[in-house]
Amino acid sequence: MKAITLAEYGGPEQMAWEEVPDPVPGPGEVVVDVVASAVNRADLLQVQGNYPVPPGASEILGLECSGRIAALGEGVTGWAVGDEVCALLAGGGYAQKVAVPAVQLLPIPDGVSVEEAGGLPEVACTVWSNVFMAGALAEGETFLIQGGSSGIGTHAIQVAKAFGARVAATAGHADRLQTCRDLGADIVIDYHDDVAAELKKATDGHGADVILDNMGAKALANNLSALAKDGRLMIIGMQGGVKAELNIGALLAKRAHIAAMGLRGRPVEGKQSKAGIVAQVRERVWPMFGAGTVRPIVFERFSMADAAEAHRRLDGGGVVGKLLLLNPDA
Amino acid sequence: MKAITLAEYGGPEQMAWEEVPDPVPGPGEVVVDVVASAVNRADLLQVQGNYPVPPGASEILGLECSGRIAALGEGVTGWAVGDEVCALLAGGGYAQKVAVPAVQLLPIPDGVSVEEAGGLPEVACTVWSNVFMAGALAEGETFLIQGGSSGIGTHAIQVAKAFGARVAATAGHADRLQTCRDLGADIVIDYHDDVAAELKKATDGHGADVILDNMGAKALANNLSALAKDGRLMIIGMQGGVKAELNIGALLAKRAHIAAMGLRGRPVEGKQSKAGIVAQVRERVWPMFGAGTVRPIVFERFSMADAAEAHRRLDGGGVVGKLLLLNPDA
Repeated sequence: MKAITLAEYGGPEQMAWEEVPDPVPGPGEVVVDVVASAVNRADLLQVQGNYPVPPGASEILGLECSGRIAALGEGVTGWAVGDEVCALLAGGGYAQKVAVPAVQLLPIPDGVSVEEAGGLPEVACTVWSNVFMAGALAEGETFLIQGGSSGIGTHAIQVAKAFGARVAATAGHADRLQTCRDLGADIVIDYHDDVAAELKKATDGHGADVILDNMGAKALANNLSALAKDGRLMIIGMQGGVKAELNIGALLAKRAHIAAMGLRGRPVEGKQSKAGIVAQVRERVWPMFGAGTVRPIVFERFSMADAAEAHRRLDGGGVVGKLLLLNPDA
Repeated sequence: MKAITLAEYGGPEQMAWEEVPDPVPGPGEVVVDVVASAVNRADLLQVQGNYPVPPGASEILGLECSGRIAALGEGVTGWAVGDEVCALLAGGGYAQKVAVPAVQLLPIPDGVSVEEAGGLPEVACTVWSNVFMAGALAEGETFLIQGGSSGIGTHAIQVAKAFGARVAATAGHADRLQTCRDLGADIVIDYHDDVAAELKKATDGHGADVILDNMGAKALANNLSALAKDGRLMIIGMQGGVKAELNIGALLAKRAHIAAMGLRGRPVEGKQSKAGIVAQVRERVWPMFGAGTVRPIVFERFSMADAAEAHRRLDGGGVVGKLLLLNPDA
């Protein structure tokens, strides 16, 4: 098969579409003939050498895919060769075939094409595990998504809204703020403004019960200020740096929680596992696609052979939703 | 009645045992004839002017008490005048009578004297709400209590052990480390050492699934280092300062949670309320006293009129367990 390989760490120029050995399904795994994968910010970090591949995971880029099951490993039940699926991956998605534990497979949601589904597993599992499982967002609570027009953001707005939350979203330009509104955000805030102050103004001083943040250090103090009493700040990215001063007194005054959680390093099964998240996403989020309350937001499609170009696009900013990478031979 | 009053903010010399008006029970409240109250570190901060009284709470010191119900306010059911009780208070415990919402009452646990019970509500509600409710400590997980010989610590060791956790405790002297062991701690660590390194050594590199910390800023980095994957750091005190650098990358690498939560500012009823915590403590912790797996740890008894002396004792260090304040006329 062909896959994107990295000559060495650096920029997109290191990425090439080359022949590599086919994956073989281990026990409990399936091999998927990939139709689509999608670009995640973690992929850009991996190319730079700033996101070490977890032990046992494929060295090939790509944290999600869609396609058709090509082979079943030992002990796999509930799935058959030919099934259309999408999957949360620990790596290996930028390729024509990928091996993945069967517990990380999802069916294609109703009303979604196989292609579009290639960009769903990461956003769906990230949002569900952070906002709903760990963050325990409740109906009627206020949810603030930082970066509302991103892949994560466009999905989070829709799911939180369908769930019954009041949704606030930030973005950096008027057109992307409008996109957030169109997706269902009740409150939109330009992130160049004082987000905490604007959010409080729009919520009678309440603030956010749950915040999903991709900025890390730079936004920490403002995020804490934006939190409501008993609020939960979930950090999933550090685009604004790694280290920041934490005012524990401010945390204590609000009985606030801060958590920073990724998907990739989680165990496949057991406590806090990918299997547990995938099962909940299938049960709770997938029906929202069938109901028409949530839809995939795809910004642009690239041939997987041009993955480098897609990386440059994401890095350049202004992407609304996901960038898909299509297997040119699928 | 008599109560401890504060002439102005300062030190224990500002505290006097003086005549003040009796409290009147509001709707849903009872008045308790106080037998005992107990000293909490928050009381020392309040005397200094560093712990503002929440709106609506008594200005009188004292976050817990035991005694007998003297009067029932409108709408109180399930309790009768004369019942022996202890109670979690928003204030007012350093007095001969106190008004308290009935939902914050607890019966005297089996095997515990009315006097001893005056030092239980704060530790029991603090430990249960932080370690078990928000921190979600599970059977078989590792729990690290910082300050294992404190009032909170001596209770937390016993409850976590009775619950089925592996318990590690820190203290600053050999005799207090031995006390932690005697109370059931599996691992004891001198807090002058590198606690994270010692804990990992004792747990095959695992670390702590839940940490209950009273130091705040000074211990933040070491606590994060001591956390296991998916670990939860619960901060309830800031004896080591308020502001510290937070490494969000370290948090993300462990999928860690940090929370800082107090009891006093919580609403009486509803979500995250004192009523909810008290109900769980009654159901889950109180039977441990009857079973003999948890007992009150009282270091010293003072007349309530000598509360200033008790404050000096706590501030002086070396107190193991609780300091009780006894109503001299009860």
